[in-house]
Amino acid sequence: MKYCSECGSTVILRVPDGDTLARYVCPACNTIHYQNPKIVAGCILQWEDKVLLCRRAIEPRYGLWTVPAGFMENHETTVQAAIRESWEEAKAEVNDAHLFALINLPHINQVYIMFRGGLKCGQASPGAESLEVGLFLEQDIPWNKLAFPVVDESLRLYFSDRSTGQFSMHMGDIIRGHERKIQINRY
Amino acid sequence: MKYCSECGSTVILRVPDGDTLARYVCPACNTIHYQNPKIVAGCILQWEDKVLLCRRAIEPRYGLWTVPAGFMENHETTVQAAIRESWEEAKAEVNDAHLFALINLPHINQVYIMFRGGLKCGQASPGAESLEVGLFLEQDIPWNKLAFPVVDESLRLYFSDRSTGQFSMHMGDIIRGHERKIQINRY
Repeated sequence: MKYCSECGSTVILRVPDGDTLARYVCPACNTIHYQNPKIVAGCILQWEDKVLLCRRAIEPRYGLWTVPAGFMENHETTVQAAIRESWEEAKAEVNDAHLFALINLPHINQVYIMFRGGLKCGQASPGAESLEVGLFLEQDIPWNKLAFPVVDESLRLYFSDRSTGQFSMHMGDIIRGHERKIQINRY
Repeated sequence: MKYCSECGSTVILRVPDGDTLARYVCPACNTIHYQNPKIVAGCILQWEDKVLLCRRAIEPRYGLWTVPAGFMENHETTVQAAIRESWEEAKAEVNDAHLFALINLPHINQVYIMFRGGLKCGQASPGAESLEVGLFLEQDIPWNKLAFPVVDESLRLYFSDRSTGQFSMHMGDIIRGHERKIQINRY
């Protein structure tokens, strides 16, 4: 951020009075520009014993596999966001969505809120952001070609729960630290 | 938003190519300025059979009671945000935080992520944003002087769970609709 979005003046980075963190502050109109994490809402969709994956047609991670997920928009709820992304990315309709996992990615200021649900009628086809979609048995999941660690972690939690016959709500962190090493915390 | 935060030009509101929603777009540098919901992280803290509340020293809802809660910052996790807010607002330390509720407020583009935990040593005192703090038995909660419907809803869910001896994870929406009427959805 270089300019104030309210008045167009050049912003400065400083700790506002009464605050503890540096913010972009406008010296002309005094607006404080807070920057906060974004929510990514997604959905693991099952049909019979298979799970829906989409192959990304966009960067980052073009050509790799993911579950339908994307940035939550203003004026919607988290489950509405997950249902919308399922439609946009895979033309998939969601039956009976349940909250499944909350995963923090503090190094990129994202919080994933992942749902699980049924894939209505088993029908899906690629949306504009997908090259192809597919239904995968657990043993056929392309683990080495998943787009993001958070997708890997969500699918592992899903299949682990499913094997017990009992789904629960999960919380964890995925942190990319020194030398791009991934640390996974499960609470 | 009136000006591009990257180049200072006047932005225009339009649907970018390949998108479905209007965004502030810069005609000079082509930056698309997405606006997304913010996370508010909070914590219901218990000591013996009492719950910690803070009386707000800031607007909105100056003078009314709330639980420690505030906007999640970049580079932290949701539970870290709830612990930080508990300290900032009530000088309260948190024992054994558990995810308790996710409540969408789509009319104001907020998602509350509420934890529950123990109040370490039963100690709390007002932070800069609180006039006073107090420990309240369920029957003494100032229900008519709570700052926000989401605080009311969270405390009702908490006491309801506590009465059964079994806490679970809750999801819901609080929507302020026509004539400021509050609609609560519990999933």
